[in-house]
Order: sequence, then structure tokens, then C-alpha cells
Amino acid sequence: MNVTVHGRTRHYRTVSFDARRNALRLIEQRLLPHQFKIVTTQNFRETARAIQDMVVRGAGAIGATAAYGLAQGTRAFRGASFEKFQQHVEQVYQTLKAARPTAVDPVNAMNQVRAAMNVGETVAEQQSLALAAAEKFADEDVAHCEAIGRHGAPLLRDGMRVLTHCNAGWLAFVDVGSATAPMYAAQVEGKKFHVFCDETRPRSQGATLTAWELAQQKISHDIIADNAAGHLMQRGEIDLVIVGSDRTLGRTGEVANKIGTYTKAVLAKRHGIPFYVAIPLSTIDWNLKAGTEIPIEERHAEEVLGSWGVNARGRRAYVRVANPGSSARNPSFDVTPPELITGIITPEGIFKPRELWKDRKRLGG
Amino acid sequence: MNVTVHGRTRHYRTVSFDARRNALRLIEQRLLPHQFKIVTTQNFRETARAIQDMVVRGAGAIGATAAYGLAQGTRAFRGASFEKFQQHVEQVYQTLKAARPTAVDPVNAMNQVRAAMNVGETVAEQQSLALAAAEKFADEDVAHCEAIGRHGAPLLRDGMRVLTHCNAGWLAFVDVGSATAPMYAAQVEGKKFHVFCDETRPRSQGATLTAWELAQQKISHDIIADNAAGHLMQRGEIDLVIVGSDRTLGRTGEVANKIGTYTKAVLAKRHGIPFYVAIPLSTIDWNLKAGTEIPIEERHAEEVLGSWGVNARGRRAYVRVANPGSSARNPSFDVTPPELITGIITPEGIFKPRELWKDRKRLGG
Repeated sequence: MNVTVHGRTRHYRTVSFDARRNALRLIEQRLLPHQFKIVTTQNFRETARAIQDMVVRGAGAIGATAAYGLAQGTRAFRGASFEKFQQHVEQVYQTLKAARPTAVDPVNAMNQVRAAMNVGETVAEQQSLALAAAEKFADEDVAHCEAIGRHGAPLLRDGMRVLTHCNAGWLAFVDVGSATAPMYAAQVEGKKFHVFCDETRPRSQGATLTAWELAQQKISHDIIADNAAGHLMQRGEIDLVIVGSDRTLGRTGEVANKIGTYTKAVLAKRHGIPFYVAIPLSTIDWNLKAGTEIPIEERHAEEVLGSWGVNARGRRAYVRVANPGSSARNPSFDVTPPELITGIITPEGIFKPRELWKDRKRLGG
Repeated sequence: MNVTVHGRTRHYRTVSFDARRNALRLIEQRLLPHQFKIVTTQNFRETARAIQDMVVRGAGAIGATAAYGLAQGTRAFRGASFEKFQQHVEQVYQTLKAARPTAVDPVNAMNQVRAAMNVGETVAEQQSLALAAAEKFADEDVAHCEAIGRHGAPLLRDGMRVLTHCNAGWLAFVDVGSATAPMYAAQVEGKKFHVFCDETRPRSQGATLTAWELAQQKISHDIIADNAAGHLMQRGEIDLVIVGSDRTLGRTGEVANKIGTYTKAVLAKRHGIPFYVAIPLSTIDWNLKAGTEIPIEERHAEEVLGSWGVNARGRRAYVRVANPGSSARNPSFDVTPPELITGIITPEGIFKPRELWKDRKRLGG
């Protein structure tokens, strides 16, 4: 999407590839929203470290980064021995895979690149095919998000107030995003609407990343405490909810997403407000039989016990907010049942959550 | 309640009076939970400033502080002219009233003191009666909270997990608190239970004040992000909710309390978890006919856009978390309808919210 730096507006993807330099260009997401900076990774080890250290985060974005990283490592091989080349590619693959060991997107992305490369019969051919496959992966990620936008945009009508939770924006993908895609598409259509961003404690991705995205696109928005959405719904100030998902169960229509999503779905149901989940097909899990099987990561208590931000001198700083000595529970995700979800917006159209299974052929299941 | 400082445990009230020095002793609540300190106000102007600057906060606590402040100012008068004395008392009253112009508790408390004083026929008599009335006000505040504790304690059973929101603890009163009173009483009865404290963004009174209170009383607790309660309820990890209230409508049973209370009530209802509101009778509003008539204060956006805490050097500091340039909405209270409330715990017993009006004679209406 467009980013304005020092008054100059340019289009960026979260990750792109400089083929001449064999280098990745990544938005340094840890500095956002306070600083916009592009970092370059010169080799696959630096790329793996960028994934590990969360320079780049979000399912689509780390998938594309791993795909490009595999191409980068593959292209850096010098020599003619096909056996040594294969050993090298395997090492690159394992290094990138180990960067976020529980994430499934880098592995899926790299498997696509590997399958495409394997058609080649020489080192040079495979190197060339690897890059083409990585570019294709990134372009398709964008195309999927754009399709979500096309299907979701009609849900937004002029004057609407839309609630979103966490960041399922373009920063989490290569471009456009999932929950934000209908908003960006509706904006292009000239619609006027207002977005409420849940701040999304404890990591505040709504107050930081989503608010930054919307500000860059000049979309009217307010940040609210996670506590405030219920009150705003009660007063008739929210018309629509759109969120993303980390994992959607194809068999049941249950949606795992950032902690607090379930709460917003319960509130939306009570107030008769449509609640939509926007997802690329890659996040549908066709295997699990129940949401209770989804492991819920408990993250470090420090996230709940304090806040990261910038201090009065403009430096990144952590403040401890909570009572010293008190402990915290920090479940990071929750599961929203299908009866609370109006529809799942996918690149293939909008589906009732319980109808994903019926349409699984079309949805890649 | 008991506070342990440097290994020494002593009983404190949030506000007490040193008659010999004609001074108030207040817990400096702005330093909690990071530092426990008692401050002294030497005259009624200092006392008014302590209310204004929120050294002391919470309905019961500022009521008692104003009552003592009026006695303090009254007792400082030197002279025999009854007319000048009355002018002086009026000035003290107006100064204390202006410290928190929208709060009703200081005014109600001071009116009780004035009514008691007026029986006296000399300056000295009125001075003496003022102090006695202020002491009576503070003692009654404690007695009311203790009665809430007696009525509420049977709701807590061994092994229960209790959720509370914001701080309706002893720091908000003279002692004991409202939502915490059943917990403290149950602890005395030897019951074991666990408390989840909503951090209560944006001002984090749960993570700071309530967690500090529970830690001082050695009650097992965890702080959670406001987003997490729904998930914990879904997983069967919360058995009971007890919150306080800033204003409860005697005619309708609607409860105004800190933003986010309504959301927890909606979640509790969905999960069949009992939801109780603990209140002294002074917070019942017998006049308003609908919750929509309750003005909802919108506080400063900075509260939502960042956090107050202590930095790495142990100094109090603010960090800006949110995207610079993004705005925030910050409604501070919400209104919970009676159908979501299992019972209202009062010093007179537990009532169904819709039955307050029927019992209004007994409840001071």
C-alpha cells in the first residue's frame, strides 16, 4: 500500500526482492508506528534472523519472506555439483524453517518453491525457477487479498462505523491485508466510513499497526480501549465488525484469532451487528475436528504487566504498569464459534462458516 | 486493611484524622502500586488539593476526606464571632466542594457533617460536633462495606475463580471496599479462592490498585488483559463475577460502572456465570428513569494512546504506544442492564436489580 515518508508517497510491499543484489527488502515492523524503515537482508541467514526476530510478522508476510529467502539462498550457490547444490538448498530450507518453528506458512510457501524448482534440470535452471516461484507466491498472496477486498467491499456502505481487532492488515501479508482489504477496496470506490481499532492488549497491534495503516491510507479512524466496544455497540455507534483469523476450521467453521475476538463476536451477536472474518484460503485447517483441539499459546506475563511504547525522549521503552509481584495469565488467542459469525470473506467469495466443508473442493480443502 | 511495609504489617484506612494535629492522613494513591506512602494535609486547602489532584480517589474515600476536611477547616477557626465562624465554614465547604465539582459524595458527606454541627450553639460546640460527625461518616462507610462482605461472602465457595473489574476495593472507600468486601470476608472464613483482575484499560486500576490490594492480603490472583476474560469463561475457568458501581439506578436496576463492565456482564450471561454488583446504598440514584440519562464522561485520549508505569530506572513514566497522529475515543463508563445482573450486594442484603425500587424504603430511597 502507499506510505508517505517526509511528504513523499510511494507504494510498498511488506517484503520484496531485489534480484540484481539477491537481497530482500523488508519493512522493519518492530519500529512501527513510530518509525518507517526498510531493511535489507543480504543472505538467507539474515533473512531467517529477520523472521525469527519479528522484523516481519503475519502469516502471509512470513510465508513470502521464507519463499524469497529460499530463492535467495538457492541463487547464492556457486559451483556445478548438483549434489552439493541440493545439500545447500536443504540447509537453506531448514534454516528458514527453524526461524519460526511453530508457524506453518513459511513451510507451505517454501514447499511451493521447492516443487517448482524441482522441474529444473540444472543448478542454473533451478535457481531461476526458485525466484520465479517466490515471486509467484508473493503475487498470489496479494491477489488473494485483493479478491477478499472485492468480495468484502459491498458490505461497507457510506457512513458506516466498522470495528476491527488486532492487525489483519497489509503489514501481516505482502500487501492489502485480509480484514482491511474490504476497507481499502471500499475506499477506492469512494465510500466514506469510519473505523474503530481495538487497541488489542496486551501487544497493542490495533493501536500501533492497524492505526498506522489506516492513517497512511487516510481512512478516518479512532483507537479505543478493548473495553469500549461493548458500550459503543450499545449506543448504536458500530455497524459492522471485520476481523482476521490465524486458523479457521474447515470442518466446523470455528475461528481462532487474537485474544478478544470471541468477546467482540459475543457482543456483536447481542446487538445484531454483522460479524465477518476475512481470510486467505491458506489459513483454513481442514484436519482439526473441534476448536478445543487448537492449542492456545500462553505468552510471557510481561506483555500483560506493562506496555511498550516511546518515552518522552522519543526512545522505545517499556514501562511496568502492574503491581510488582503480581502474576498474569496471557492466553494469546481465542476461538469464536460459527453461530456468532455472519460470514467468512475469502478470495472465492463469502461463505457461512458451517458451509466451508460443503464447499471444500472450491476452497482448496 | 493490612499493609506490609518493610516487613512490618499494620492496619490502615485510606483516610484518617489526627485530632491533636488537626491533620488528615491519606494514602498517596497516585504512587501505588509502586510505592506506599502516607501524606498529611495540614489545613482544609491542602485537603481540597489532595481531592482535586487525586491523591485520594473513590466515592467513599473522597466522601470521608471531604467530611474530615470540613471538620478540619471548622476546627481551625479562631475567634468568638459566630457570624465570622459561619462565613468561614461556608468558605471551607465551597472550597472542598469545588475540588471535584461533578462528584456527589463529598457534598453528601459534608451535608451530613453540617447538619450535625448545626445542633451546636457555640463555635466550640460546633467544632466538636463537626469532628464527631466526620468520624461517624468514616466509621459508617467502613461498617457498610463490612456488611456487604457479610452478605456477599457466602457466594464464594472453596476453589472458586472470581473475576473482578477495575478497583472497587478498600482504596476506593475508607476501608474494606465493595466488590472486594466478600473476598476479604471469605478469606477470614478460611476459604481458598483465586481472583482474576481485569487490567482495566485505559487507566489500569485492576492491574495496579486491585492487584496491589489482593497481594497485600495474600489472596491468590492473576492479572489478565481485558480481552482474556471471554476466553477464560469459555474454557470454564471463571465461576463468579463481582464488580462495583459508580451509580445504580434504583428505578430500573441499571448499573453504571467502569468501561468494560457491560462486556463482562454480557459474557457472564452467555456462560451462565453469576454476575454480582456490590454497592453501598449511597451510590443508588433514586431519581433517574433510564440508564441512557446517565452522562458518560469521555476522558482524555492520551489515556488510550499510551500507558503510565515505571521505567527501567524505577521512575514513573508515560510511554506513547499508539500510532502518532491517530485519535482515540475514551468513554469511561458503561451501563449494564438488569437482565445481566444476578444480584446487587448491599449492606442490607442481596437484591435482584429490578427489586430495588420495591424495597426502596429499606434501602434509603
